[in-house]
Order: sequence, then C-alpha cells, then structure tokens
Amino acid sequence: MDDDHQPQIGLDLWKTDRPETGWLHEVECELCRRCGTDSKVARQDLETFVTRVLAKHGVPAEEGDTVARVLVAADLRGIASHGVARLGRYLNGIEAGYIRPGVDIEVTEAAASIATIDARHGLGQVAAARGMNLAIAKAQQGGVGVVTVKNSNHYGIAGYYVQTALDKRLIGISMTNAAPLVIPTHGTKALLGTNPIAFGMPAARPPDFLLDMATSVVTRGKLEVHDRNHEQMPQGWAVDENGYDCQDPGHVIANLVAQAGGGILPLGGRGETFGGHKGYGLAVMTDLLCGVLAGSAYGRDVNDLKRELPKGEIAAPRVGHFFLALAPERFMPLSVLEQRVDAFITMIKRSPKANNSPQIFIHGEKEHARALAHEKSGIPIAANVLETLRAIATKCGVEPPRTLGGS
Amino acid sequence: MDDDHQPQIGLDLWKTDRPETGWLHEVECELCRRCGTDSKVARQDLETFVTRVLAKHGVPAEEGDTVARVLVAADLRGIASHGVARLGRYLNGIEAGYIRPGVDIEVTEAAASIATIDARHGLGQVAAARGMNLAIAKAQQGGVGVVTVKNSNHYGIAGYYVQTALDKRLIGISMTNAAPLVIPTHGTKALLGTNPIAFGMPAARPPDFLLDMATSVVTRGKLEVHDRNHEQMPQGWAVDENGYDCQDPGHVIANLVAQAGGGILPLGGRGETFGGHKGYGLAVMTDLLCGVLAGSAYGRDVNDLKRELPKGEIAAPRVGHFFLALAPERFMPLSVLEQRVDAFITMIKRSPKANNSPQIFIHGEKEHARALAHEKSGIPIAANVLETLRAIATKCGVEPPRTLGGS
Repeated sequence: MDDDHQPQIGLDLWKTDRPETGWLHEVECELCRRCGTDSKVARQDLETFVTRVLAKHGVPAEEGDTVARVLVAADLRGIASHGVARLGRYLNGIEAGYIRPGVDIEVTEAAASIATIDARHGLGQVAAARGMNLAIAKAQQGGVGVVTVKNSNHYGIAGYYVQTALDKRLIGISMTNAAPLVIPTHGTKALLGTNPIAFGMPAARPPDFLLDMATSVVTRGKLEVHDRNHEQMPQGWAVDENGYDCQDPGHVIANLVAQAGGGILPLGGRGETFGGHKGYGLAVMTDLLCGVLAGSAYGRDVNDLKRELPKGEIAAPRVGHFFLALAPERFMPLSVLEQRVDAFITMIKRSPKANNSPQIFIHGEKEHARALAHEKSGIPIAANVLETLRAIATKCGVEPPRTLGGS
Repeated sequence: MDDDHQPQIGLDLWKTDRPETGWLHEVECELCRRCGTDSKVARQDLETFVTRVLAKHGVPAEEGDTVARVLVAADLRGIASHGVARLGRYLNGIEAGYIRPGVDIEVTEAAASIATIDARHGLGQVAAARGMNLAIAKAQQGGVGVVTVKNSNHYGIAGYYVQTALDKRLIGISMTNAAPLVIPTHGTKALLGTNPIAFGMPAARPPDFLLDMATSVVTRGKLEVHDRNHEQMPQGWAVDENGYDCQDPGHVIANLVAQAGGGILPLGGRGETFGGHKGYGLAVMTDLLCGVLAGSAYGRDVNDLKRELPKGEIAAPRVGHFFLALAPERFMPLSVLEQRVDAFITMIKRSPKANNSPQIFIHGEKEHARALAHEKSGIPIAANVLETLRAIATKCGVEPPRTLGGS
C-alpha cells in the first residue's frame, strides 16, 4: 500500500464502494505520488476553465462542455497525455481551421441498428459522444448499435465513450484511428496509428471491466517522457529508419516528425517471434473499421494536413471512429451478467501472484481508483502543463484554473 | 521466393488471382517446404476420411461434413495444429461422452439482431457454424448480427467462421474461449485460454483481410514443437510456477498438465513494459464475451472435466463462442468498400521493407497462398499425424487416407 495514496480516498468513498468486497484498496496509484508535489486543481474548476477557453474560441457551450468533460476525465483517471495537456493543440486546430466548432454533424440512419456520422471536421469529442450515444440508443432499442464516424478529429481517451455505455449498463466498444506512428511488421514506414481499442462490460461491484489499450507496444507519450528525462528506451519499443531496434527516443521522435522512416512497434514487438504481427493486425483491424468502413482517412493519410487533395476537400485530420453498444439483457438478466463478470474478476484477482507482484490488476481498476482520489482531493497537474494553461488563460482573457495547493 | 513453393501454385491459379495485381507471389510458404518430404493427401480424400471416421462414431452425416470441412480447412491453410491432428481428441471426447453428436442445438432469438445458442455439448464446429450462419442471416437482414454459443466444444480455427462471412462479402468476427493455459499479468496461475480473435473484411482482390490470432504470445502448439525438437524457447513466451521467465518448454507443459502454476504469457509478454497487460486484457475481453456473456464456462472452468458440479450438470468442456457479422453495404456500396480495403492493403504492402525482410505480409495472405497450393497438389501431412490417422482407420474399419506421394 502506497502511503502517498492512502489519504486520497476518504472513508466515505470507501463506503460507497463497499470495501468489504475489497479490490479497490489493492491499487497502488503510482501517479498519485505526484499528488504530493504537483499542483492540484478541482475537477469542476478544470472543466469550467476548459469550457471558458473554448467559448472564447467560438465553441458553442454544449460542445465546450463535452470537450471539457472528456479531457478532464482523462486527467481524472491519471491519463495526463490525453487530458488538458492537449487543449493547446485543439486551439491550434480551431485557429488553423481544420477543427470546426459548431458545424452541423450529419447523421445517416443506415438501419435500425446502424448509423453513419459525418463529423464535418467538428470537434472529435462532440462527434464521438454523438456516435456513442446513438449506438447506446440503438442497443437499448434493439439490443445492438453500431455507429461509424468520419471526418472527425482527435477524440481523447477511447475509454470515455465506453464508460458512457457502462453508465447505462451496456457493453461498449470504442475505437479510433490516429496519426501514423506505428510500423507494420517487416516494414520501416509508420503507416498506422496507435489505434486504440476500448472495451467494457458492467460488473456488480465497481469498477466495471474497462480495457482501453493502444494496439502498439507503447504510445508516443512514453517515448516523449523518456526523451525529456534523457532515458534510454527498452529494446523492443521502436525501430529506426532501417527497421533495426532503436533505443534512442529522440532519434525515433525526430524520424517520425520528419517522416524519415522507423517508428513505434506494434504490440508484440519487432518481427513475428513475440507476436508483433498480431499487434499489427489489431492496428489494421481498427483502421479498417474506423477509417476504411467509416469512409474516413486511413493509414498514412490520417492527420496528413500537407497531402494533395481532390478538389473540394479540405486539408483536415479526417480521423475516423467506430462505436458498438450491446445490451446484456438480451443474453441474460443484467444482475446475473454483472455477478458473473464480478466472479470472473474475483477469480483472477484472488489467484496466486508472481514474485515481487503485490497485485493482479483488472482493467480499469487503477484508473477508477485514481479518479476517486482526484475527484476528492483535486487533479494533479504537472508544472509544465499548468504553465501552458496559464499562458492560454492570459492569451484569451480567462481566469486561470485555481490550484488547491503547491505553487 | 521459395523454390519449394513455386511449383505448388500452377499458372491457372495465378490467373484466377490476377497476377498483375501481385501480392500472392510474394508469399514464401515456409510450411510448403514440407511438401517435398511429407506425404500429401488430396483435400477431398482427407475430408471424406474424416467424415467416415466420424460416422463410425455415431456422428450424423451433415455434422460430420461440417467438422471435416473445418478441420481440413486448417490443414489446407497450413495451420496443422488445428487440423486432422485433432481428430483423435474429438473421438476421445465422443467416447467419453462430453462431446455429443446429434444433439438438438437450442437457438433462442433474443432480438432481430441477436441470438443465443445452447450447443448442449455437441460438436464445436457444428454449433459454431450454426452460430455464424445465424449472424450472417441477421446481418443480411438488418445490417448486423450477434450470436453467442454456450456449452460447446473446441471449434477448430476461429478464422474458418470469419471466412464464411467473407464468402458472403460481410465483415465477420469470431472468438472462442479455451482451456486455461495463459497467465494474467503479475499472476502465476493459468486462468485464461489462448482465446483467439478472428476478424475479416472483404477486399477487391483475393485474399480478403483475415486476422486470426491467439491473444497469447504463442499457442501451446509452439511450445510442443520446441519440446519435441529439444529446443530452448525464446525468453518471453512463458513463465514457471513462480512467475519467472522460463525457456524450458517441457517444464512449462508439465506444469500446465499438472496445474502446478506458470504458463504461456499473454501477447506483450511478462509484466507491463511491453504491453503484456494488453494481451491479458484482450484474453479477458474474449472470455467475457464467449464465456461470461454467452452463459458458458469461463476462466479456469473452461474444459475442466474434473471440477465439482452442481447437481444435474455434466462434466464437459463448456467452451463458449461469440460471432458477429456486419454488412458493409449499410456503410457504403460494397465495391467501394472492397476497393478501399484493397488500397489500404496496397499502401501497406508497397511501403519500404525492413532490412532482411523481403516482404510485408497482410493477414490471411500466407494462409490463402498455402490453401491454393495445397488444394492443387495435396495437403502435406506430417508422418506422426499420418500414423495416427492410419491407426484410427484400422480401429474403426475405414479406409485410411490415400497419399499422393511420399511414404
């Protein structure tokens, strides 16, 4: 048990989570160690700040609320790479014109269970929330809903939309393609995004099962952290322009920026010995659903703002998403399903641990624990991110987020 | 280009596959090297043999045909571990009573797009074919079909059922849970199967995209091959009873048989550094859909013939499957979709290769090339498998499969 972490979850929160059933206290929230050093901001304040900044950039209130909720949900869950740290990039996109707030999203009802959405280069979170909500409505109606979204932008954490389905006690799937950073097995050119897959199923006890994974070994964020800290990467994360193992994060990032070859490896690593072709296959599957089937950009064309375009098309990221919601009640009573999920999780968590491993985690558990802690005591914001947020605040004449402690 | 392989694909087959578009000739079929040494059996003969043997074991003709088709499809595609080599195990199951040919499979239509099947311990292939066919019919009707199957048995290669959907120009997903061989991240007890995920999308040119992957680093078959050849495994495939890296295939297999701890690692390997928690998450996702949602066994209870049972339940593998079919025409005209899939595959295949890598493969390509070769010149059957088939033939008074060459 991490001492830094303990004070973060108050007894009242324990109670709502039925501590006697006990998984949550097992989580050691490594990010919460930052709680002692980083400045903290209350969730509500951070959301309000994001909404106000977006409003100053012409984003309608309802859209701004959605973006703020998704971004802050990432910080709340400890996924800082997809949180308010991204706000500046969104503002750049709005200023450059490839993110278009307030557009009329076009929804086509292809069948009772299927819809396709043209996001028309609107905010990714707005189009994605619309997509998942539609899939949810269809699942509530007929048992299953499938919705694709094209011409969208970065949509934040894939798991957010699955959580929306879980909140309605539905099974959810959320995928997106993304800017090319990942090489195909035996290739040297980054043609695939980190193309995440998120999947959730409701459990009787919180947290629900919520897998949210990049289909690459690591995300770009991990390379950047190693680069900033001047740390060598483990062999097996990335390759250089010749397809050889490369442990220099700066070299790989520079290559990716210059499109000079090399990039991040798919889950399973280099070659086929450890199943790299499987991670590569999952990345392709995600892009086939989000890019190809949705009618959006795919492969190296995602987020390629410089490529030559057919007449009439605008230079835009053209990110695509895929959502599926499935109603467990069509298979068995919800409470029975939830108990079965719970029993499965318990089977795993109570099984023998490897040496030096205090815990076996279930997917979504760490993030849920962090969210409870941060909801209560504030979200830790790294100094460089806070500095950026303050600069944004000054630039657009909005109050900066109030910090609860620290500098 | 592999010299052993070239004669296997005749010009007529090349022609049907439009060689000018050229992916297929790039495939080096490593298994076809065996074509020179192994005995070969014509596909049709092998199917007839399997059907006759099953008939002698009380399997109705139609069920026998299905099982034969699925088993031989694996051999045809070069996935010998899931082919006729499994026939003996199925016969054992029938004799022991936990595989029940000829049972009335129970289908419940839960919604227009959803069905649940109780296989009642019938042959896995029969229940699975029924499941996917139902998903296909629902997708043709309303755009999407989701079908779960419970109380089933080993269903062969997951990709077979996706191929059924592809043959109807539909997108297909097929998953199954399986006997526990894989440890959760930070655990030491094998609680998860190699739980494969298969996914396919139709392409304009053959072969269609067809990913068929275990969610573990490797399958049990690879450990067995290393064990038979007295070869050390690479570090990162498996762990011992303490959760430490273990490169001795015999030790890991013996542990698995004795349920003494340790097992195969999830895709991404040991710990979280290379994303082992992602492969573990995919394995859990598969079991949540195939075991938990389907109402079948899950986790360590799959294929546990020795466990204590509630009154009235029979000791059976209780494997569960999940099928989904999706009609691309609901998203865009089929021909457009197929061209887009094709363009994506071409983008990947024409991209720069890593040093020492002559090719970038697309999923399903190797298997398709092997199938064409084996369809034409016979399926290579390893000597030990052929010996077993002949013993089965003698035992049940059926003609053994005729070999085309070799011994």
